[in-house]
Amino acid sequence: MQLLHVDSAITGDQSVSRQLTARTVAAWQAAHPGTTVQYLDLAQQAPSHLSAQSLGFRTGQAAATEVERNENALSEALVSQFLASDVIVIGAPLYNFSIPSQLKAWIDRLAQAGRTFKYTDKGPVGLAGGKTVIVASTRGGVYSTSEGGQAMEHQESYLKVVFGFFGITDVRFVRAEGVAMGDDAKAAALDSAEQSIRTQVVAANQSTMAQAS
Amino acid sequence: MQLLHVDSAITGDQSVSRQLTARTVAAWQAAHPGTTVQYLDLAQQAPSHLSAQSLGFRTGQAAATEVERNENALSEALVSQFLASDVIVIGAPLYNFSIPSQLKAWIDRLAQAGRTFKYTDKGPVGLAGGKTVIVASTRGGVYSTSEGGQAMEHQESYLKVVFGFFGITDVRFVRAEGVAMGDDAKAAALDSAEQSIRTQVVAANQSTMAQAS
Repeated sequence: MQLLHVDSAITGDQSVSRQLTARTVAAWQAAHPGTTVQYLDLAQQAPSHLSAQSLGFRTGQAAATEVERNENALSEALVSQFLASDVIVIGAPLYNFSIPSQLKAWIDRLAQAGRTFKYTDKGPVGLAGGKTVIVASTRGGVYSTSEGGQAMEHQESYLKVVFGFFGITDVRFVRAEGVAMGDDAKAAALDSAEQSIRTQVVAANQSTMAQAS
Repeated sequence: MQLLHVDSAITGDQSVSRQLTARTVAAWQAAHPGTTVQYLDLAQQAPSHLSAQSLGFRTGQAAATEVERNENALSEALVSQFLASDVIVIGAPLYNFSIPSQLKAWIDRLAQAGRTFKYTDKGPVGLAGGKTVIVASTRGGVYSTSEGGQAMEHQESYLKVVFGFFGITDVRFVRAEGVAMGDDAKAAALDSAEQSIRTQVVAANQSTMAQAS
């Protein structure tokens, strides 16, 4: 089994989402000792913003410059790595009510017609089905417990939409929220996330097994 | 009156949102001949992804390196430009159900405690009130007419949330959607947007006047 471990927090050792992805990957490996792990640190190696130079995979035009060739190669490497993975564990902190722009830039390289989705007479169809995505979602405040909070956050709801568009129905969240609301709130959030890691890894295993059978 | 004209589409002359922001700015200038316009093209001059090197305004730490100094200066220039503007016209195409990462990176530089919002005992309070934001929203498909579509789009709803957080209640949309659904659909969308430009500029004027009085 192939697991892709993605981090996007820019806060290094202070990052809660990095802590949670590491714990999630460890829990997955404990459940599946043969798992191969690839690691992608988007804070260190973010794709540049999608640009006129990196639109090749959308326009179908051959690269005319060295920059375009390099951008196309990067997009191809990222989508291939994603498609080769059975499980993707993504650290996604909430920055200004959405995801880090690094994470959006990565998604913009994955969203390639003919690879992660295709257009049909009946509308777009996802091509990356059968994978499990586990998102380590971290938030300074609390958003999940009120309608107002749920309407403000464009992080979990966005990731659910875009991976759903790729055909991935098994999108799970390990959430630590309120981590900037004092030591007690943070400790409680981490406890809750730790329990969630165990629950979600077990549930995802069952889902993966069901799909395989 | 000061107007900030922001584009973020990466498709150059093919961009519908660039066409709409240009028309909106022209309509605003026609209504207010004395308006001073600043232009910011995020496809050409995007801030880099917010990173450990550009977190200075959040941590309050003095810049230790040349890179950090430059990043701090860029963040300061962008937030000052934003705060000095009475009206902000923003081209925001929908890319993969959200905004371009360039536009998110710009917002990440604007979201500075003490400048665009502040923390209080009763929670955060926006500091950029009294401005008008007009978003030229473009979409290949149609999202506004169904609950499913509205739940998928994380572009208009996101901009409304984040500018609302900055205290801006007058956030308006000039929308062209379905622009990738054939020539007739595109022409109809542009017609509708053109009418909306006239309506929104008039309504925003009234709102601005009411705030000024």
